Amino acid sequence: MLHLLRTHIEKIIPLNDDEFEFIASCFTYKKYKKHQFLVQEGEAVPYNYFVLKGLLKLVYTDETGKEHIIGFAMEDWWETDFPAYYQQTLATMSLECLEDTDVLCLQLEDYKKLCARLPKLEHFFLEKAYMGFITAQQRTISMMTTGIKERYDQLLKKYPSLVQRVPKSLLAAYLGVSRETLSRLPL
Amino acid sequence: MLHLLRTHIEKIIPLNDDEFEFIASCFTYKKYKKHQFLVQEGEAVPYNYFVLKGLLKLVYTDETGKEHIIGFAMEDWWETDFPAYYQQTLATMSLECLEDTDVLCLQLEDYKKLCARLPKLEHFFLEKAYMGFITAQQRTISMMTTGIKERYDQLLKKYPSLVQRVPKSLLAAYLGVSRETLSRLPL
Repeated sequence: MLHLLRTHIEKIIPLNDDEFEFIASCFTYKKYKKHQFLVQEGEAVPYNYFVLKGLLKLVYTDETGKEHIIGFAMEDWWETDFPAYYQQTLATMSLECLEDTDVLCLQLEDYKKLCARLPKLEHFFLEKAYMGFITAQQRTISMMTTGIKERYDQLLKKYPSLVQRVPKSLLAAYLGVSRETLSRLPL
Repeated sequence: MLHLLRTHIEKIIPLNDDEFEFIASCFTYKKYKKHQFLVQEGEAVPYNYFVLKGLLKLVYTDETGKEHIIGFAMEDWWETDFPAYYQQTLATMSLECLEDTDVLCLQLEDYKKLCARLPKLEHFFLEKAYMGFITAQQRTISMMTTGIKERYDQLLKKYPSLVQRVPKSLLAAYLGVSRETLSRLPL
């Protein structure tokens, strides 16, 4: 499965075999079952996860116990409670499997070791961070300016396979509406 | 004024005089008056801006002509229509001076030249990108889960001097409420 990570990184920077061997040595392979948690609110966040196979939801639970979906992640995506991982604080979100999921796990210490030894990896992570920032900012704009129907259509256009795989109740929680409101839309 | 940029970068990575001289050679200094535009919707976005002095608003205007404030920027902040700058597309937002503003301007080509010659700058920009991503994601969470009063209080706590300097009508547009709603809150 490691070749998936190599293909993913090589879309942005070239790697030789020695470099990739070093990179691979910094990751741990783990398998999770549907409904298992990779990150739990209130606990430490040891890893950033690269998804090899499966589907995850990143959830923020508010004071009333209501779940808000901050994001989904599937094959070829990175996901974690990023502020908690990067700043080594406790998780304020949870990351849970919506399907059986295989991931490669990267500790922050190993991330730093990787970047110190292979500085070109910072270029790779910088591209990923810019895309994450752009996506998060566009979501803010979309939430401020766009109706639910248009936001659903944008999601469908950008990630058609995600919309197929995610239960409608979770899409509703991602869009910030009730399941009933979503089902009344002419989708 | 260039020393402000050096101090800013050296909070994250050390620089020697030669390195900073090269960095400085990649920036252009510009002065703008209150109400002038640095970025205009529909036009090219040649620069990313580092604010030396002053205050900017980043605005998205929807189809009905309503202005939504995506962000503010003041001393020591970077701002531009980032997707348009980085992907070299036309601006979908505008960036306008709320006060007379002095900036250092960085073209994308010069940004790439900088990172190629001084790879440690990618570490600097990576830190900035992570913080931008975290801030944008936290804003999404805040918009999904938090009332206007709490969002105003968060803003005041995080950026007290910003809240002092920005007109209340623009704070309302940032928070996504009318000026009247904001003025009825027990602030």
